[in-house]
Amino acid sequence: MMGSAFSIPLAENGHEVHLVGTHLDGDIIEEIHESHTHPRLKSRLVETVRPYTWDRLAEAMVDAELVVLGVNSLGIEWAANMLGPLLSPDIPVLGLTKGLAGNGQQLSTLPDVFRAGLPAAYRQQVKINAVGGPSIAGELAARRHTCVVITGPDQTLLDRLAGWLRTPYYHVWTNTDLVGVEVCVAMKNVYALAVGLVIGLLEKEGTATNGAVMHNLAAAIFAQGLHEIYYLVGYMGGKQDSVYKLPGAGDLYVTAQGGRNCRMGRYLGLGMPFSEAKAKYMPDDTIEGAQLAEAVGPTVEKMIANGDLDENRLPLFQTMIDIVCNDASVQIPWDNFFAEG
Amino acid sequence: MMGSAFSIPLAENGHEVHLVGTHLDGDIIEEIHESHTHPRLKSRLVETVRPYTWDRLAEAMVDAELVVLGVNSLGIEWAANMLGPLLSPDIPVLGLTKGLAGNGQQLSTLPDVFRAGLPAAYRQQVKINAVGGPSIAGELAARRHTCVVITGPDQTLLDRLAGWLRTPYYHVWTNTDLVGVEVCVAMKNVYALAVGLVIGLLEKEGTATNGAVMHNLAAAIFAQGLHEIYYLVGYMGGKQDSVYKLPGAGDLYVTAQGGRNCRMGRYLGLGMPFSEAKAKYMPDDTIEGAQLAEAVGPTVEKMIANGDLDENRLPLFQTMIDIVCNDASVQIPWDNFFAEG
Repeated sequence: MMGSAFSIPLAENGHEVHLVGTHLDGDIIEEIHESHTHPRLKSRLVETVRPYTWDRLAEAMVDAELVVLGVNSLGIEWAANMLGPLLSPDIPVLGLTKGLAGNGQQLSTLPDVFRAGLPAAYRQQVKINAVGGPSIAGELAARRHTCVVITGPDQTLLDRLAGWLRTPYYHVWTNTDLVGVEVCVAMKNVYALAVGLVIGLLEKEGTATNGAVMHNLAAAIFAQGLHEIYYLVGYMGGKQDSVYKLPGAGDLYVTAQGGRNCRMGRYLGLGMPFSEAKAKYMPDDTIEGAQLAEAVGPTVEKMIANGDLDENRLPLFQTMIDIVCNDASVQIPWDNFFAEG
Repeated sequence: MMGSAFSIPLAENGHEVHLVGTHLDGDIIEEIHESHTHPRLKSRLVETVRPYTWDRLAEAMVDAELVVLGVNSLGIEWAANMLGPLLSPDIPVLGLTKGLAGNGQQLSTLPDVFRAGLPAAYRQQVKINAVGGPSIAGELAARRHTCVVITGPDQTLLDRLAGWLRTPYYHVWTNTDLVGVEVCVAMKNVYALAVGLVIGLLEKEGTATNGAVMHNLAAAIFAQGLHEIYYLVGYMGGKQDSVYKLPGAGDLYVTAQGGRNCRMGRYLGLGMPFSEAKAKYMPDDTIEGAQLAEAVGPTVEKMIANGDLDENRLPLFQTMIDIVCNDASVQIPWDNFFAEG
């Protein structure tokens, strides 16, 4: 969905966009081919965008000046394997995928995972960039005002990419803090899931007799989420000012306004174990916050046990990992919030 | 309302609370006297809380160990004048009021304004503290989980105050960054008004054919607000890590969830001039974001003209000042967002 939405500013700026589905997207590509409409985005794409099924990837890549990657976070290694024979150091990559990976010992950003999956011959030369910021795909597709940051190692390239993308509704900033942006936009999903818990907690407890709901609670969880992101960005070597700008505060804000993380948060807040809620109500949905907790939970727990990560700085993340990975019940760890160190 | 809500954790911890209304609050005090219920809070106060009308202030103050100040931001100087003869260096003050003041030359926090209004004989000795963080009064009154920071110059005193206040639903942290907290909790009102503009902009433009609303836009404004708060906290000599914690991100989040700033934001986003919307629809309401813009707008404009404040760092604040003080129409200054300096 995000890949398709992203084609709109590019195509409206006159670029030739080849939209390639994965092996799971055959129906979507077929429908775009027929009607130029993405069925889940419910939006017409620009007429010049050319849809391709996966078997025609090599054809779609001929003379490519940029590869934009919009796969699910679980598909990053797969995408590197598929693109490996077709990429070259001259073709920059722009990642839309949000997530982190853990190998039991340490955490990696998705650009690092993607790079590691490329052929050794040119792996180090490829310029991998990413987009971060509050950007619901359906809103971008509807040309609603959207503000994002493009990040990567080469400022000259970032300026070129930003020029390709800017439209009157797509507002683009650049910075070279790839790690900071990646950590913010990945972690926001798990904290949006945490803010979403409040929907269920409120539904269970009910509105108070004076009409009070639970915005104070949601806001405290929101702030603790940013506080933990701040720590983790610093630990991973990113710049911490991304935390209170578009990639951190902005993206967490938009993600906490609704969507699948919030739907799942509601079930959890109501008291349902994660595995039951997932199987019963959202079996086919990607819940990005839960996916992140599953992807890095065991690694984070090991790094805390080793003393590599400071457990006092990540109480909410640990709570969410416990809820998602161990079907723990919801207990907000107030006493451990806002620790410094 | 906040003063009355605040009486609940204090009284539930066994403290004797004397709740004194201003000269404008006669009806409220009368109703609390009769029914122990605050009419606008729609909540019963604790039985031990004793309501006082303003003429009995001196009586209410006998043996006071703490004065909690919950007046409107316009009433701070007045409160200092009234309390001046009754305070002493031994009675700490805890301010709930949010705002900033401008004298045409420079900005001041409300604790500084209050202090300046006290008798010279002991003015410098009084310990002035403040509470900040996401705390809707009605939710606190309903014993919903609420997280706040108490800030002031003396850590030992802060620890004592926190001990008086903590309950299973009122979670209290402390720090000595009075300036940082004060700037965050004051400025969040004007940025909540800015986020509220989106409600009106959406209503005017309508939901898109694919169902898209304008969360991306609201989130970008939210992030730009924090970016500007970050700058202003630094300028005023506060610690910038308050920005992504409870006083900044947390309090802006909760304030943007609804309330009077958002109601007024809607009218402005719909295209109505501020003065018309105020007179027509909210003549008797305090709109804290607008009140702040009015209180400091001329000073901020002068400080920018002087070069004391960097105009590149405050484009959204300037926009809001222009909307409130000059009835300007809503134009989001995208191109000036997220400038560094």
